[in-house]
Amino acid sequence: MERERILIKNLHQYKNRQVRVCGWIEARRDHGKLIFFVIRDRSSQVQAVINAKNESAFSVAEKLKDEWVVCISGEVKERPEKMVKDEENGDIELSIDEIEILSSAKELPFEKDTQLNIETHLDHLPLTLRKREISLVFKLQSALLEGFRSALREDDFVEFASPSIVGGDAEGGAGVFKVEYFKDKTAYLATSPQLYKQILVGVFERVFATGKAFRAEKHATTRHLSEYTSLDFEMGFIKDHTDIMAQLQKVVKKMVENVWEKHGKELEEFEIDKPLVPEGNFPTMTMREAQELILKETGRDNTAEPDLEPEDERFLCKYSAEQFGSDFIFITHYPTSKRPFYTYRDEKNPEYTKSFDLLFRGVEIATGGQRVHDYDLLVEQIKEKNLDPGKFKFYLQAFRFGMPPHGGVGMGLERITAKLAGIKNVKEATLFPRDMTRIDLPLADN
Amino acid sequence: MERERILIKNLHQYKNRQVRVCGWIEARRDHGKLIFFVIRDRSSQVQAVINAKNESAFSVAEKLKDEWVVCISGEVKERPEKMVKDEENGDIELSIDEIEILSSAKELPFEKDTQLNIETHLDHLPLTLRKREISLVFKLQSALLEGFRSALREDDFVEFASPSIVGGDAEGGAGVFKVEYFKDKTAYLATSPQLYKQILVGVFERVFATGKAFRAEKHATTRHLSEYTSLDFEMGFIKDHTDIMAQLQKVVKKMVENVWEKHGKELEEFEIDKPLVPEGNFPTMTMREAQELILKETGRDNTAEPDLEPEDERFLCKYSAEQFGSDFIFITHYPTSKRPFYTYRDEKNPEYTKSFDLLFRGVEIATGGQRVHDYDLLVEQIKEKNLDPGKFKFYLQAFRFGMPPHGGVGMGLERITAKLAGIKNVKEATLFPRDMTRIDLPLADN
Repeated sequence: MERERILIKNLHQYKNRQVRVCGWIEARRDHGKLIFFVIRDRSSQVQAVINAKNESAFSVAEKLKDEWVVCISGEVKERPEKMVKDEENGDIELSIDEIEILSSAKELPFEKDTQLNIETHLDHLPLTLRKREISLVFKLQSALLEGFRSALREDDFVEFASPSIVGGDAEGGAGVFKVEYFKDKTAYLATSPQLYKQILVGVFERVFATGKAFRAEKHATTRHLSEYTSLDFEMGFIKDHTDIMAQLQKVVKKMVENVWEKHGKELEEFEIDKPLVPEGNFPTMTMREAQELILKETGRDNTAEPDLEPEDERFLCKYSAEQFGSDFIFITHYPTSKRPFYTYRDEKNPEYTKSFDLLFRGVEIATGGQRVHDYDLLVEQIKEKNLDPGKFKFYLQAFRFGMPPHGGVGMGLERITAKLAGIKNVKEATLFPRDMTRIDLPLADN
Repeated sequence: MERERILIKNLHQYKNRQVRVCGWIEARRDHGKLIFFVIRDRSSQVQAVINAKNESAFSVAEKLKDEWVVCISGEVKERPEKMVKDEENGDIELSIDEIEILSSAKELPFEKDTQLNIETHLDHLPLTLRKREISLVFKLQSALLEGFRSALREDDFVEFASPSIVGGDAEGGAGVFKVEYFKDKTAYLATSPQLYKQILVGVFERVFATGKAFRAEKHATTRHLSEYTSLDFEMGFIKDHTDIMAQLQKVVKKMVENVWEKHGKELEEFEIDKPLVPEGNFPTMTMREAQELILKETGRDNTAEPDLEPEDERFLCKYSAEQFGSDFIFITHYPTSKRPFYTYRDEKNPEYTKSFDLLFRGVEIATGGQRVHDYDLLVEQIKEKNLDPGKFKFYLQAFRFGMPPHGGVGMGLERITAKLAGIKNVKEATLFPRDMTRIDLPLADN
């Protein structure tokens, strides 16, 4: 009977014993009568060595090249002290007895260690994603998703799948993709689950979604994606926007915890630093307070601006880390003019809203606030933004038939991933990024 | 200070004590100097009563109508024995001291208990979804998602967000929606994450996704949706398709368990039966064996057909329930002619594939199998299906550069939800269904 496969991360438990591991040839180095391999599986990697004395296995070994898929039987040996390396499984080595080839690979288009430009990297994702430090980014992303959902489920939130195909470009804002629908109708790809999650506050009080949002923005930058994963929640029976901030803080802390709990060891190996997360609350200031602080601290006077500049956001994050030991900082009360029609205005000063951004390592990663729940007021605010209430009639039913005070948050998964992993270009924090020049391959090549 | 809100499901713990509950007016019944209300929150519902002697609160109570949103303070009282009803919270009643109105509601377009035809139901989803037995279907759906993911995460699967916008209609099969992309390019909405999950077996070995798939099928039936949630997983280093079946069985059992663990009480209230799940393995037979069985048991001779008929699937499920105590049954070895290009053929008889369907309560709910992992063979099978390998060049890289034996499964969340909840029309197991006649509202009205 075939021996059971052992994951490479567990080989330490099998010193001086026979094992069978399966994976890819990560590297090969010939050394006379010895051939050294690095074998990679989903869990880790390890060095394996074969001696020419084992003729049958050696003849198989001689064929192997990078990315061939194999199962290897052999003994787990401790390396002599002078051969121990400061790397994953650097103290053990697999002494090969037998090699089974599961699949061969063609010659690679470039050396594995080559620093690729981003276009070449993206052209070859089925290969380039296999690099351990790159695949780690997406394990981290998977753990973020898990942390987001479990934090919300603990608090009674119901998950829903928000529609991607929508009937109208209701908000009339950012670029939207058109879909050829049935009966010669044009449909659109949803730019956000906003209207649906509000509708569902009327049903479940508390909901979340982790689906796709689509933006047809004609910008080829390090920040723009045609589709991204939008982490959204919405909750009813709140006092005001501060209830939403408290919920978001809890969720974000849990997301970070989950990533480091699941992948702490690999993150350390690739020198990815855990963010500064305060024991207590994230620091909070209003946008106007933030502008005053910036004026005082830097002499830069943006106090008349209706929004923060990228430079301001970077300053505030740096300030927060230094002064409050927090890589996260809330900025509240953005002007009414800069926020969507459904935003709740501050009773004390209606030029400002009960809204907030959460900044992290220099950029906004989440935006949210309280929403209007009164039907008549909502219709009025739709009109004030020069939108047509008639186009919102499905959505407005939720408000005709009784809605509690509520609010919520939206955040882009890829952006948080990038910031956590220390990646500059959000496309490298997206498995298969789409933008105005590319869908898998450059558009010209599709 | 305002009293903390208590969820209605927890009121039993507060007998003879003052509480504050918040929710919607589910019903009102006037009885002289008494007004009775049913109050509904996300957790449950309860009867509340106000006496005219409490003048200030009574004058508020007189205004209240269905779906108004309120917070009510009062005392939890046990009902006299003869007033106890066999229903949720039928043994207690809230004696109202004070009522706070959070939001009013316009008059409802129909009586709540009216049996609506499906079109009227769908036209008014923001209201009709609020019905407890309807919202329960989507709580069940949320728990299915949770069960699917947690079963796979336990076994080391990495979650990924599969692209919705794709560059080509590669498989050239079922109807596909066109998207107006940048540079006058036409893009398409993905009909499945199949190619991406295979690519990622080369990266993570084991992956899953729970995103949207899109089908432009011109059928207005109880089964067709323009977009649905596709539960997909894929895993490498398998022996054959039976490893995938074992994994699927484990996942499905966990999904069912999770639903009943989280919502058992409400499911019982609405008489939704837990499926028959065997202790051991789901029964399994090949498609040809199934046809022979049908011939023997019913005299219906479909043994020359290349696929099972709907009638056959219903028979097999009934048979499985009666003979094996299982509402689930695997059918394997569908003909090569009926399966996609990437399907692995049975070495012993290449006219059949190492594929399977999982049937449940009369229909197929999941389909899967082993896939081809050899590059040359895969290219050959693409050509055999009269498809163009050039259109698969991004995907094919995964196979050029070494892929292990692998396979996986896809299942439609809405269909499983419908079958579990005893719903005939899959649109009623979809929160906001889209089909050829409707996106939220009928297409003509959008």
